[in-house]
Amino acid sequence: CVCVCVCVLQYLPSTAVNTTLRLQELRERMRPLNISAYIIPGTDAHLSEYIAPRDNRVAFMTGFTGSAGTAVVTQTKAALWTDSRYWVQAERQMDCNWELEKDVSISSVAEWLINEVPPGGEIGFDPFLFSLQTQENYNINLDSSNRSLKSIPANLVDQVWTERPPIPPDHLTQRTWQMKVDHIRNQMRDNPYEPTALLLSALDETSEGGGLCFLFPGLFNLRGNDIPYNPFFYSYTLLTMDDIWLFVHLDRVTDELKEYLNASCVGSLCVQLKSYDTVRDDLQKYVAQPGVKVWIGTEYTNYALYELITPEKLMTSSYSPVLTTKAVKDETEQRILRDAHVRDAVAVIQLLMWLEKAVPEGKETELTAAEYVNNYSRGPSFETISASGPNAALAHYSPTEESSRRLTVDEMYLVDSGGQYLDGTTDITRTVHWGTPTDMQREAFTRVLMGNIEISRTIFPSGTRGANMEMLGRRALWQVGLNYGHGTGHGVGNYFGVHEWPVGFQTNNIPFRSGMFTSIEPGYYKDNDFGIRIEDVAVIVPVQTKYGHNYLTFDTVSLVPYDRKLIDTSLLSSEQLKWLDNYYETIRRLMGPELDRQGLHEEKAWMLKHTEPFMESGSSASSTSFKVSRSLSLCSV
Amino acid sequence: CVCVCVCVLQYLPSTAVNTTLRLQELRERMRPLNISAYIIPGTDAHLSEYIAPRDNRVAFMTGFTGSAGTAVVTQTKAALWTDSRYWVQAERQMDCNWELEKDVSISSVAEWLINEVPPGGEIGFDPFLFSLQTQENYNINLDSSNRSLKSIPANLVDQVWTERPPIPPDHLTQRTWQMKVDHIRNQMRDNPYEPTALLLSALDETSEGGGLCFLFPGLFNLRGNDIPYNPFFYSYTLLTMDDIWLFVHLDRVTDELKEYLNASCVGSLCVQLKSYDTVRDDLQKYVAQPGVKVWIGTEYTNYALYELITPEKLMTSSYSPVLTTKAVKDETEQRILRDAHVRDAVAVIQLLMWLEKAVPEGKETELTAAEYVNNYSRGPSFETISASGPNAALAHYSPTEESSRRLTVDEMYLVDSGGQYLDGTTDITRTVHWGTPTDMQREAFTRVLMGNIEISRTIFPSGTRGANMEMLGRRALWQVGLNYGHGTGHGVGNYFGVHEWPVGFQTNNIPFRSGMFTSIEPGYYKDNDFGIRIEDVAVIVPVQTKYGHNYLTFDTVSLVPYDRKLIDTSLLSSEQLKWLDNYYETIRRLMGPELDRQGLHEEKAWMLKHTEPFMESGSSASSTSFKVSRSLSLCSV
Repeated sequence: CVCVCVCVLQYLPSTAVNTTLRLQELRERMRPLNISAYIIPGTDAHLSEYIAPRDNRVAFMTGFTGSAGTAVVTQTKAALWTDSRYWVQAERQMDCNWELEKDVSISSVAEWLINEVPPGGEIGFDPFLFSLQTQENYNINLDSSNRSLKSIPANLVDQVWTERPPIPPDHLTQRTWQMKVDHIRNQMRDNPYEPTALLLSALDETSEGGGLCFLFPGLFNLRGNDIPYNPFFYSYTLLTMDDIWLFVHLDRVTDELKEYLNASCVGSLCVQLKSYDTVRDDLQKYVAQPGVKVWIGTEYTNYALYELITPEKLMTSSYSPVLTTKAVKDETEQRILRDAHVRDAVAVIQLLMWLEKAVPEGKETELTAAEYVNNYSRGPSFETISASGPNAALAHYSPTEESSRRLTVDEMYLVDSGGQYLDGTTDITRTVHWGTPTDMQREAFTRVLMGNIEISRTIFPSGTRGANMEMLGRRALWQVGLNYGHGTGHGVGNYFGVHEWPVGFQTNNIPFRSGMFTSIEPGYYKDNDFGIRIEDVAVIVPVQTKYGHNYLTFDTVSLVPYDRKLIDTSLLSSEQLKWLDNYYETIRRLMGPELDRQGLHEEKAWMLKHTEPFMESGSSASSTSFKVSRSLSLCSV
Repeated sequence: CVCVCVCVLQYLPSTAVNTTLRLQELRERMRPLNISAYIIPGTDAHLSEYIAPRDNRVAFMTGFTGSAGTAVVTQTKAALWTDSRYWVQAERQMDCNWELEKDVSISSVAEWLINEVPPGGEIGFDPFLFSLQTQENYNINLDSSNRSLKSIPANLVDQVWTERPPIPPDHLTQRTWQMKVDHIRNQMRDNPYEPTALLLSALDETSEGGGLCFLFPGLFNLRGNDIPYNPFFYSYTLLTMDDIWLFVHLDRVTDELKEYLNASCVGSLCVQLKSYDTVRDDLQKYVAQPGVKVWIGTEYTNYALYELITPEKLMTSSYSPVLTTKAVKDETEQRILRDAHVRDAVAVIQLLMWLEKAVPEGKETELTAAEYVNNYSRGPSFETISASGPNAALAHYSPTEESSRRLTVDEMYLVDSGGQYLDGTTDITRTVHWGTPTDMQREAFTRVLMGNIEISRTIFPSGTRGANMEMLGRRALWQVGLNYGHGTGHGVGNYFGVHEWPVGFQTNNIPFRSGMFTSIEPGYYKDNDFGIRIEDVAVIVPVQTKYGHNYLTFDTVSLVPYDRKLIDTSLLSSEQLKWLDNYYETIRRLMGPELDRQGLHEEKAWMLKHTEPFMESGSSASSTSFKVSRSLSLCSV
């Protein structure tokens, strides 16, 4: 279904951006190229999910600043495709030059293109911003329509974007280099297709290693700041048996870093720095050699590099071995990631306690959380979503001058926040009400919680896909005809991407294995009224079953209680209540000592009050001894 | 993981078939073609799931008679790929010429081929037996390995198979022709890609219409007997706006049928009969015309036809509009399909009651079920699976002279049977124990039942995919480390295929809509010990929810109680018990009058005894009035 917003100039909100001039300039640049349309994807040359402001060409052209969108411009029309999370926001931010399309599939874009582009017409795109899959999907959908794609490596938006932000000048920071190149090379050697090189394009492939190093894993253990909230830097890597070519902006590499990269340099472990801009030339030269074969992960390799590799020299998998190896965290990584969540929970508990006191008083005050920004913290892991009342119905709302609301006891409040700590990345959402919730709000919250619990307590064979279990997060809502329009969870990195694919509950995510971290985040959003989301991060752990081997379950590492006022316990099954009490027991055991250590006595009392057991004592006693032993190792921060 | 059976000649079971001579003859025919390997798929030119004996080239070459398998032959080796249902059977039936491969993915076959075929070598295949997807998957997997496929339209196995069964001589039967060609033509007209023709290849596309006709839907309403248990006949159809070309074996068409096809013939509704063997020539001629575009469903079109259509004249979808339209049954079809299940349940109840009496007595006796083969019956819809003790651990066991066992009170018994009735196709599995089951058997049976109930009672938004819900069938088993190795359900036809794809719980099945019929069939199999499966057919029906619209659930139409002795009610939740009692109430209400009508008083008493409610009376009373009103319309057979 394709919905088109009807745009009337005088009713445009003040938040809409005037895009007439920039569209005019883009169209002028399209004419000499003889293209009837130009596609502007919302990604960068590394097909990143989170992009730097300089890569947000969709925001520049359309005014819409949401994190997902594709724009298409013809000589007379302009359209933006984005998903349900952003429809309201897009309508607020776009002017009448733009129409909003709500079906984000490529086939919907292609259908629009077939209507707007005359037969024989060409559609321009920047091959650096298309994955192979994207390029192929467009081709399949345009196939036999007599419209075709035209690759234009020099981006047209960049030519009209005079104020485009530069690459951040910060120098790349470095850490102890525990190179696990050997492990990846072994996977290349063992592969029956005998690849001679591995091309890494995704930013968390090049900056990251394989979940194998001791403290801070990373193929190169370099972390930059190119993309807000993500410690990545623009780069490509070509790894062969003998060489490691790292393509970066050379002026950003300090002499110390160069020295450091060469320090432990023995033969095939030497990193050769090459210019980011010569990656196409250098790859082409490599491929021209006889007997080579380049392994790429098709999901994160852009078409501009892919098209240089002739079919007989190409080997593909959906994801590179770096991404799939990195997805599984080793014991040490698991331990420090758990520790980061303990520290993060202190901050969230402080915030929730402070709000619970401040909002009913109605006074304007300021939170001073001394421990929130502690020694380990490197700032938030994404832009905090802090939304009350109808703002929370926008799943990804962030406060602005125009739309922010005063917090009151009459509305629900949703906060989705996360931190980058040196030992891990966190992501947690809690929804609270400081007054009297309606019956419907309590029912919806309880059913969202039931979804969270049903996933968390499920036991499944190792290798089950998240996509095959995610309906457990929706089932209690479906029961009464409610649902939510976003995914149910994503992988989480160690001081890395807060969305660390390909782990998660999406159809293209890889099967769950022990040691993976994922968020679990069902929700419910009532338009113009309220929004609910309950998000925890969990690690996938082995579990003993009565008859079988190799079964797994989730162990929640987020440690903040849910709002009791919003839980209708009569809806919960006894298994769900038991899970909840066990979880609260864990929070008490892990957070109590940490709050004591930090001298946060009021916070500790708040935490104890909010984690009172729901069931008669004794009914969940059986698992106590196991839980105690774990808590000891976790709390020794 | 690839497992290879080690074959020792003297330990070969007597059931193994000597394939040395036929392999020798096949290899002789491979040599002049310069192919290093030859792939033998287990399908026919219409990519049917159930095939006629004359198309079972895998069985002829390997000796293995299971319903799924792919064989590959080189000059020195021969291998068969089949899934876990058939591993034991394959090892019993194949001699030492064959190795058994257990990973049935095409990438596993390709890996084997890369090991066995020298670089530069060619691998022969019959393009009529490859779907586009199969051909493409092989290509992707062989890509850049320097081994390639070679299309050989004349099948090599057929050349050495001197005793190959002929096409059955039966003439095609016909029914009242309620042509719904217009409806399909409208879908062609409305499609933005403007196809001029629709090519139908799947046998249930050509023989069938679109769930639209009144009593016996069918584009042509012809039913043949080419494939055992399936009322199909070999054919292709090319449907354009002006013409309908039906490709059949012309000597099978009677004069009456010809006359009948022409009787209601007005202009574009005339069927032009063409020879089955000229389909490639005629399609090529059609495609050679300017301005044409042929729509194909890629899942059921073979490569031999696909390769004749040039890309700019091709339009594809996964399934043709005939298959997707047919998947949804209209009200009349739903009613008569429900009726068929009432009659089928009489037969199953008779069988179970008779066994319950006869087995403990230990006497050999014979069941005379006068009503089983009744006026509506056209025989079974597949080969009955009747298995006791360890035989039932083979999910698809059928009795043979060598392996059949005497039924006793010491072993469990599994019967999976179905009928072709003029008004519908049925499929039901019950597992029973006539003595004292072990605790483990009761627990496993109860957990399988919990899986069946959890799927059946789930409420979900229209358009949810079965694949996203099928884990509900496994979850109670996973809880204790048990699982099963087959799918969880498949679409069911109206006097048509007992497996009517693309409805079902597989990943490539289409989203569930109201009016679709599917089986629900979790199971558990303990090697060399016992097997459990509980299979019901359910129709997808709309359901009223508290807050939302367009929600669906399952309504079970199979009407036979489960073995009470095997149910451990302490494991069931109160929701599950309530569902069970409601279901038993439905069985009583629908089967009682039918058993009365047939004068089957002993059977009625048996049915009442086996459908006693599990919960206190009153607890499930709320839904009674609704159920009563439905039963009235259902029982007026």
